[in-house]
Amino acid sequence: MTVEEANTALYEALESADVDRMAAVWDDVEPDALVCVHPGWPMLRGRAHVLRSFSAIMAGTPYIQFFLTDVQVAVTGDVAVVTCTENILTAVEESGSSGEVVATNVFVRRGDEWKLQAHHGSPVLGTLEEVDDDGE
Amino acid sequence: MTVEEANTALYEALESADVDRMAAVWDDVEPDALVCVHPGWPMLRGRAHVLRSFSAIMAGTPYIQFFLTDVQVAVTGDVAVVTCTENILTAVEESGSSGEVVATNVFVRRGDEWKLQAHHGSPVLGTLEEVDDDGE
Repeated sequence: MTVEEANTALYEALESADVDRMAAVWDDVEPDALVCVHPGWPMLRGRAHVLRSFSAIMAGTPYIQFFLTDVQVAVTGDVAVVTCTENILTAVEESGSSGEVVATNVFVRRGDEWKLQAHHGSPVLGTLEEVDDDGE
Repeated sequence: MTVEEANTALYEALESADVDRMAAVWDDVEPDALVCVHPGWPMLRGRAHVLRSFSAIMAGTPYIQFFLTDVQVAVTGDVAVVTCTENILTAVEESGSSGEVVATNVFVRRGDEWKLQAHHGSPVLGTLEEVDDDGE
């Protein structure tokens, strides 16, 4: 399994709303080390808490599709940091879950596989042109 | 230098608005691998782009102070993932830079030092109690 495939598996699990696939994406060797930030959320820690949050999100999201752009992978030893932009098409009950999200996903190598240890997604509230204008 | 010290150095550089200290915090061995997300911003890539953004932020921020809470460090080989909550006191010209931010900071070991490779900060837009209520 390549890092890119492990990263894609996260979003396929979300798209299919499959709790078992989501559980398989995340590392279970160091369950207490798992961390997750959904866009606009506080930080969630620990495998049980993280997986429960995804179950809640998937239960409340009738339809969601991700188009990943600007994917970059940096591998250092047994750790891979994947950064990307999530372009999201969705129908959700709650606000703040559609549009553009930037994500940092940290994977650890476990044998032949890469398992997710940290996911941090955040809403893009302005354009790069707007923020670049600040102070320049 | 411990991972915690490297993490603290990031925030001290911001508090002192010292461009040179900020430059020393970030890795310069793989400059193209650096990524940074300021709260609500798109993803910035590359050492020059990242450092320029901090210079602009520091130039536009007369006063800022960080109180870090919920700091957790996970070390795997030569990579350390630090996650924390930034409680921020600030006086800024722009909006969206005060209050509570959650951060994921990825450091790589370079000799005796830890250098920052990825910083992802995002605004906390709700409480954990509110988000936990969704779908449960």
